Amino acid sequence: MSRVGAVPGWVGDDRLARAAWSRVVEPTDRVGARVAARVGPSVALRHVLAGEALPVSSGVPLDDGDEPSSARAAAVRAALAEAADRWRVRAVHVDPRRDLDAVASAGGRLVVPADDDWPPGLLDLREAAPACLWVRGTGDLRELARSVALVGARAASPYGRHVAQDLAAGVAGHELVVVSGGAFGVDAAAHAGALAGGGRTVCVLACGVDRAYPRTHERLLDQVAAAGLVVSESPPGADPTRWRFLERNRLIAALSGATVVVEAAWRSGALSTARHAVRLGRPLGAVPGPVTAASSAGCHRLLRENGAVCVTDAAEVVELASGLGEFYPAPPPVARRPHDDLAGPDLQVYEALAPRRWASAEQLAVAAGLSVPQVQAAVGRLGLLQLADADTDDDGRPVWRRLAGRAAR
Amino acid sequence: MSRVGAVPGWVGDDRLARAAWSRVVEPTDRVGARVAARVGPSVALRHVLAGEALPVSSGVPLDDGDEPSSARAAAVRAALAEAADRWRVRAVHVDPRRDLDAVASAGGRLVVPADDDWPPGLLDLREAAPACLWVRGTGDLRELARSVALVGARAASPYGRHVAQDLAAGVAGHELVVVSGGAFGVDAAAHAGALAGGGRTVCVLACGVDRAYPRTHERLLDQVAAAGLVVSESPPGADPTRWRFLERNRLIAALSGATVVVEAAWRSGALSTARHAVRLGRPLGAVPGPVTAASSAGCHRLLRENGAVCVTDAAEVVELASGLGEFYPAPPPVARRPHDDLAGPDLQVYEALAPRRWASAEQLAVAAGLSVPQVQAAVGRLGLLQLADADTDDDGRPVWRRLAGRAAR
Repeated sequence: MSRVGAVPGWVGDDRLARAAWSRVVEPTDRVGARVAARVGPSVALRHVLAGEALPVSSGVPLDDGDEPSSARAAAVRAALAEAADRWRVRAVHVDPRRDLDAVASAGGRLVVPADDDWPPGLLDLREAAPACLWVRGTGDLRELARSVALVGARAASPYGRHVAQDLAAGVAGHELVVVSGGAFGVDAAAHAGALAGGGRTVCVLACGVDRAYPRTHERLLDQVAAAGLVVSESPPGADPTRWRFLERNRLIAALSGATVVVEAAWRSGALSTARHAVRLGRPLGAVPGPVTAASSAGCHRLLRENGAVCVTDAAEVVELASGLGEFYPAPPPVARRPHDDLAGPDLQVYEALAPRRWASAEQLAVAAGLSVPQVQAAVGRLGLLQLADADTDDDGRPVWRRLAGRAAR
Repeated sequence: MSRVGAVPGWVGDDRLARAAWSRVVEPTDRVGARVAARVGPSVALRHVLAGEALPVSSGVPLDDGDEPSSARAAAVRAALAEAADRWRVRAVHVDPRRDLDAVASAGGRLVVPADDDWPPGLLDLREAAPACLWVRGTGDLRELARSVALVGARAASPYGRHVAQDLAAGVAGHELVVVSGGAFGVDAAAHAGALAGGGRTVCVLACGVDRAYPRTHERLLDQVAAAGLVVSESPPGADPTRWRFLERNRLIAALSGATVVVEAAWRSGALSTARHAVRLGRPLGAVPGPVTAASSAGCHRLLRENGAVCVTDAAEVVELASGLGEFYPAPPPVARRPHDDLAGPDLQVYEALAPRRWASAEQLAVAAGLSVPQVQAAVGRLGLLQLADADTDDDGRPVWRRLAGRAAR
């Protein structure tokens, strides 16, 4: 830790600390999510801002039984220091009361896990759960207990938009909340159909709830807020960046009792929502379409390869979402592997590591096609995620090996 | 047996006896199929024409261990006598050499189980297998070892016909024989697509192979014969009656390595072919279509309820039919229940019978809504199929109870 300073008073308030954490740490930041899940945003921010040590018993940075002097512990400490440096750049400027004012003037509010209306579905995300939710609208998050996500391609065909609107209107008539992402195409048709059907609908955004993205959906989002909720894990004013979109999909899946992909081509963002639903143990449905149109190829892929249920009308969507009466079934025991979220150098280094053979940073750099400093940073992060184990070889040089599943999140 | 007469010399020839049996016994006649499977058509015809007793050891009419004097044995004998009377009406007039001449002059021939090219897939039909096949064309039945049935609605949409033709042409390019039923709509498009793709195709008819049904498909059937085979279990000249169509579907499923339903509405004959495929343990595929059209509702039903694989192009059809390299996988152990083929009074009486409570003909008549003579005929047939057990009550009157699965065929 290079710079430490004073700690503002609000840091001790869990609600304000969570609001601040949502501005400091990106949804993609698995180290940040893990630290917040383990010690809470208040403690994490004190660590970032004032250099206060993290409690060892929390498992961050060390696990019970780790020798603080071990190479693994050293690597974890280094990775955490790197992350704290990164977080501090934003943390010194953050003022959550300003964000709370901003969301309030947009007609919204902050919801934290201690609140009665914190959606139980988010518990299934475990350490990838958001620190808080920013919401805007008249709806109640508890209504998500009976809900279904209707998602699909932005470049939807007239068929896809028609079916999305039709299913949403029918589902709304069964008192089921329609969850979607507010995008062009299937998403917009789903929201519009739910509104036309006189039902509730929830839009999960990748940007702040006080913003409209896409811009032309400003009126639609206002209508959604008037008859439901607009939700985001990012603070007011946040931009809809690409990485936030990808993480937003996990929220759609976790907040909904089931997910139905209405229309999606072979590669479509909607398929990432479907994968999240499967990992979370949520029922997954897909609407078939003509095999002569590429626009349904992703749906057919889900039917063929992912065990999606074929749904063709609103009654079948309701049946899917009602399941066996369990709206939040437990995720399957081995649905997620701890490295499922890795990307970039971390994934490359993880794949270069072997479970039973120790390798040096130089060896890993060759195997992963990365520089030695990149490898050193990556093994530090992997150590923090308990995906890598460190030791020293006979010459006293640090070496690493792969840890598998010691702590699936 | 009321009338017995002379036995023609051809009865002793298995090939001629099978040809004759196919004219005497309808495909729906389960008692006939069972008797032929147990003792062979020659012995069965001698029994019918000359009253020769059936060998007890064959299990017809008695099972090993049955007391010939038991009430069950008496009922079985009565049912068999009734069937023999029915068969004799046709048997006294039959001349198989005439049928062999007729099929030869249409360019066809007879194939029996002893022939090298008897399709092994028919073995899975067990006692519902046909006694023989009448075939016409240049193809070889052995080519069915690599085959797929493409079936669907007669009232096909332009989409269904287009997809059937497209899949068949693509499949033909993979050296897979396309099997179908020669009907309007999907069937005709499948045959035409296979021909256009330069491949082999087999048409399984419900009428004689020397006839064209529908009449307007005469040219198509000739083209199929020129590049493959036209096949039927009914003899030359046989009419395409409704009951023969239903039984024809079991042949399509049994002759093919896999079955794909290309387009079918909620109730469609193609779904019966799909059910046969499932019972026989054959892979089943269904092509999705727009949910806004009723013409694909049957396919979506197969995807939702029957575990059909979603197939969208020729490569996926080939993958389905190739499976794990087994073109004739064994049927699942409990795929069929012995009473699955019952219909009419037999089914009504079977359902009126209880496994542990004996009932008189009068009681069964009340329960089944039938006359006492109808019940007596039905329990006889059920006894022959080992689905009913007979005894006498304390007053010496005959009583029956249900037998379950003693002899699934």
